[in-house]
Amino acid sequence: MVKILVDAMGGDNAPAAIVKGAAQALNADKDLKIVFTGKREEIEAELGKLSYDAARVEIVDCRDVIGMNDSPTEALRRGDSSLMKAFSILKKDDEACALVTAGSTGAAIAGGQILLGRIRGVKRAALCPAIPNSRGSVTLLCDCGANTECKPVMLCQFALLASAYAKVGFGISSPKVGLLNNGTEEHKGDALHQETYKFLSQMDGINFVGNIEGRDIMLGDCDVAVADGFSGNISLKSMEGCGKLVLGVMKKEFSASLRTKIGYLFLKKAIKNMRAQLDFEKVGGALLLGLKKVVVKSHGSSKPQTIAAAIANAANIYRGGLVPAVEKSLGSVDLNVFAAEEG
Amino acid sequence: MVKILVDAMGGDNAPAAIVKGAAQALNADKDLKIVFTGKREEIEAELGKLSYDAARVEIVDCRDVIGMNDSPTEALRRGDSSLMKAFSILKKDDEACALVTAGSTGAAIAGGQILLGRIRGVKRAALCPAIPNSRGSVTLLCDCGANTECKPVMLCQFALLASAYAKVGFGISSPKVGLLNNGTEEHKGDALHQETYKFLSQMDGINFVGNIEGRDIMLGDCDVAVADGFSGNISLKSMEGCGKLVLGVMKKEFSASLRTKIGYLFLKKAIKNMRAQLDFEKVGGALLLGLKKVVVKSHGSSKPQTIAAAIANAANIYRGGLVPAVEKSLGSVDLNVFAAEEG
Repeated sequence: MVKILVDAMGGDNAPAAIVKGAAQALNADKDLKIVFTGKREEIEAELGKLSYDAARVEIVDCRDVIGMNDSPTEALRRGDSSLMKAFSILKKDDEACALVTAGSTGAAIAGGQILLGRIRGVKRAALCPAIPNSRGSVTLLCDCGANTECKPVMLCQFALLASAYAKVGFGISSPKVGLLNNGTEEHKGDALHQETYKFLSQMDGINFVGNIEGRDIMLGDCDVAVADGFSGNISLKSMEGCGKLVLGVMKKEFSASLRTKIGYLFLKKAIKNMRAQLDFEKVGGALLLGLKKVVVKSHGSSKPQTIAAAIANAANIYRGGLVPAVEKSLGSVDLNVFAAEEG
Repeated sequence: MVKILVDAMGGDNAPAAIVKGAAQALNADKDLKIVFTGKREEIEAELGKLSYDAARVEIVDCRDVIGMNDSPTEALRRGDSSLMKAFSILKKDDEACALVTAGSTGAAIAGGQILLGRIRGVKRAALCPAIPNSRGSVTLLCDCGANTECKPVMLCQFALLASAYAKVGFGISSPKVGLLNNGTEEHKGDALHQETYKFLSQMDGINFVGNIEGRDIMLGDCDVAVADGFSGNISLKSMEGCGKLVLGVMKKEFSASLRTKIGYLFLKKAIKNMRAQLDFEKVGGALLLGLKKVVVKSHGSSKPQTIAAAIANAANIYRGGLVPAVEKSLGSVDLNVFAAEEG
């Protein structure tokens, strides 16, 4: 039985969308158990509307909810919040395998690093979403916002962490790793990226293919795009904004006249296919990599099916053995060499 | 008469697309004069295929062409190249108003800063494309790759430069300026962005609206997005990649079956409208801001109509008085205060 903690109160549509999504996940996977953290009466009210296997659901009552604008430091102090309570249980309960939240990213990173803890040897946890690409698969963008300021050794670890995720989550035996930079030539970028390029070129245990540009995340041939959290975040949000605008303009133009509306009827399924291929949430949630257990951050605006996908993704990655894979991968590389070199 | 230098040999489709685009621009604007730099016989061969007013065309023969992979330093040494020759003429000829090239960005930046020179007081030139946005207008993204490593005073100048462009090029009286960051809160970002936020908040002469995220470039309410050249470049290329993927998937899905092909016939015009609204080249080329004359960098893969738009944009901005506007704007702000503060 895979036991997953679900922060019932996190995100814009909580608790309704969260509880509904979790019930969908339970119905789809008979070997799943869900532990909700949050306001018992609200969770029960939502559960009351649904059909699910009550024997595989537990509620841990807590009264506090971390808001999207609360600082991570503030969030950490609130042990009775649905998110921090979930992290505490995940840490203590040997049977608990994973945590899913649609709450504040900053609070999830803080809770993950402080309450749950990092895998031995990991310098920093990293946020790693899966971006749809032109090959019909996904590119893992790591880091994407957990670490504003990075050192080369951190970026090298991100390469290892995301490679382990690509292997375990997507069955890619030798994931291609690119370094997100402002050009493909070796000398490109600032000192951080030049140093990182050098280190990644020398590293065992990863399949480094060189620098990549922003457009290569969606159009290129990489499985993993390694980024500092600052430019990774800007890249992700720039792509999201573009995708949203294109779909918005399409919607507007396709509903502009009777003629276009007729055309739309013929293309309805094609547009649905198109949206599915370009869905930034096609893989449920972003992983918080480097932590002692599986943690999945789902989008704040998650709908039930997004939450269900995030829970399924968390279970899949737990079963695939993400944490042992990261441990093995880290053990095989002596990153202290790089750490010493950078002083 | 507005006299514009055109690098006939720069870009993937040179000289054919360049010469053809320039002829289109000449035909559309009777007060334009074009001076081509490049291989005379090749330019003449292309001109021979076209109808245009020969009295407003001049060719300066030069034998060398800078490749897309030549380093900027190497490019600067090649005075007989079409691009460097154009910069030399632009510098010396008082009648020459602007330069348009589809050649190497790095070489154009180097030629602009070294051969043409910066406006007095400008620390660094910046590359500034116009990104289509959800308001049906454009967001100016500055800098977008000319400066990998930046200081706060540079970012403050980018705000002034791009604001002047927004006024002169798009008639926006008080352009809204956002700072591209990894979150909207004041404390977001690394030391560079935190410092810059502080300076921009205090600066006269710009309408600073605070931090913006990557998605706000295309979806938000800013006229100018100020960025360090590293993350600005990654943002631009991430958006370009996403846009290209979405249109690619759409094309594939819409031509998948007889049914979708029929739908496409009804939507042909709507899709054309959509493409026009989302065209990254809808404003011809990216401006190189901060230089003593108008310099427009067109995409390497520019087609004739892109070149024609870039030439029209250059003439428009020259007539609007971009350089005097930048001079006035810089004169009104004492950036030495910030420079002193940052040491």
